[in-house]
Amino acid sequence: MTFFDVLDILGTTAFAISGALSAMNRKLDLFGIFIIAFVTAIGGGTMRDVLVGNTPVSWMQNTTNIYLIGSITILSIMFRDKLDYLKKSLFLFDTIGLGIFTIIGVETGINAGLQPIISIALGAMTGCFGGVIRDILCNEIPVIFRKEIYATASIAGGICFMVLYSFMINPEYIYIITTLLIILIRLVVVRYKVSLPIFTLKKSR
Amino acid sequence: MTFFDVLDILGTTAFAISGALSAMNRKLDLFGIFIIAFVTAIGGGTMRDVLVGNTPVSWMQNTTNIYLIGSITILSIMFRDKLDYLKKSLFLFDTIGLGIFTIIGVETGINAGLQPIISIALGAMTGCFGGVIRDILCNEIPVIFRKEIYATASIAGGICFMVLYSFMINPEYIYIITTLLIILIRLVVVRYKVSLPIFTLKKSR
Amino acid sequence: MTFFDVLDILGTTAFAISGALSAMNRKLDLFGIFIIAFVTAIGGGTMRDVLVGNTPVSWMQNTTNIYLIGSITILSIMFRDKLDYLKKSLFLFDTIGLGIFTIIGVETGINAGLQPIISIALGAMTGCFGGVIRDILCNEIPVIFRKEIYATASIAGGICFMVLYSFMINPEYIYIITTLLIILIRLVVVRYKVSLPIFTLKKSR
Repeated sequence: MTFFDVLDILGTTAFAISGALSAMNRKLDLFGIFIIAFVTAIGGGTMRDVLVGNTPVSWMQNTTNIYLIGSITILSIMFRDKLDYLKKSLFLFDTIGLGIFTIIGVETGINAGLQPIISIALGAMTGCFGGVIRDILCNEIPVIFRKEIYATASIAGGICFMVLYSFMINPEYIYIITTLLIILIRLVVVRYKVSLPIFTLKKSR
Repeated sequence: MTFFDVLDILGTTAFAISGALSAMNRKLDLFGIFIIAFVTAIGGGTMRDVLVGNTPVSWMQNTTNIYLIGSITILSIMFRDKLDYLKKSLFLFDTIGLGIFTIIGVETGINAGLQPIISIALGAMTGCFGGVIRDILCNEIPVIFRKEIYATASIAGGICFMVLYSFMINPEYIYIITTLLIILIRLVVVRYKVSLPIFTLKKSR
Repeated sequence: MTFFDVLDILGTTAFAISGALSAMNRKLDLFGIFIIAFVTAIGGGTMRDVLVGNTPVSWMQNTTNIYLIGSITILSIMFRDKLDYLKKSLFLFDTIGLGIFTIIGVETGINAGLQPIISIALGAMTGCFGGVIRDILCNEIPVIFRKEIYATASIAGGICFMVLYSFMINPEYIYIITTLLIILIRLVVVRYKVSLPIFTLKKSR
């Protein structure tokens, strides 16, 4: 098991918890919770594999993901009262998942021989898609559409990854630094209500 | 024409009717009705083919599906008053489609050499996706999100399929038994308001 | 650079502007505007490539698209006051994109050896998908669901393409005539409030 596999498991776990929380919040039944947890956790990676042409997509290649997500779902249900303060827990796990899946997406792009800027775009799509699909299925406003910086944190992380990569830094450090940067950006932004410029349109009809 | 092809045609027909009904309910124009009927009927199979890497996806391989869906759409429009009681008709055809497409998905997984539990997941996604995309496009709450058991019936059917398959039962029997089981579960559940446990979160913010 | 590449650039530009306008209307931040512009511009083509099995999808093959969309986004932000009258600008650019991407989709289908009617369906999906995904992400009612004829214009254009193609007319003329026809249909329809028949369901419950 490589360091990369560990990251994959952590990201899957974080997104599965965020999916299970959303589904419980929506009062879905047992299997409904599992389905949303599953789709949230594998959504980004599936999108990535389909776009690159890596099929059957990776969650089909072995049963690790499905058993992991099943266990996480059961644990999330059992300890749902510890995951209290839904909004905060959801935010935290969603952010961890975003960070990890972004770098997995960027890495996949590099390995497929794609241009750096394309790899950054692939990373952002991989990181964001799980959360977007979770929100669409749960009838929430998609995360990338909310005021908190989301895609921006992912793209900033992708750029950081590429810069470090060009300096030939040890990949494991790159993974850790980039993931932490993405998580940090999102935490700081929400905590201090930082925001990027918004461009309003003149009143029109 | 194999028994499997017959099933495929029945499932496509059922989902096309459910799509046409949804679209008429939303007052879409002629082509709009056709588009929704088409997307509902081919959605699940397209998702399945894309995930497994079977491209060009199956509805592109021949014109059977497109002419079938076109005819069904016209018939649905002509006999729309017989399909009265929209909610009941929609429910019935949607359930038949769910049952049939679930087993086609499971079978595809087995043929692609995927693990049993992965095949069950593929079956559930194949069965549910057409209805979900129909509901998203028609601005309805997606079926898997409603109170009636939906994904659960599909997963239960997939498990039943695998058990019967392991006993080497004649495939045609497996198809029929599993499909009927899925339809039965959904009918019984809605009729008697059975429900799986729901896990509520503590009031939180 | 072929005539086809020019069309591709025009279509991408039109959809990128329509995406940027939608995103600014929704008050997304800088990167959010870029993401929506990007997804709108590449959505249809990505769908087309995934269905046909042409992976890695075309926007990953070179950096033209990503720099083009980036520049268009910046220009859209700078000149947002010239793009005043949001609704009209959005409508215009969305319609140009619909026309161009429809014929690119039809052409792709022909080149992949698909049946004419399948190619028309592929063209309609390619043309409509970018706008649909933009609207879903921006929480608008998807374009194909609104009263203005949308998918219908795309399908009519696809049929016209096939008729001209069967007469062996010079491809460049086919592209121009079909694209203009789609744009014209949509403009006329909205201007004169033409509509296709709508089939209402009897009041039911």
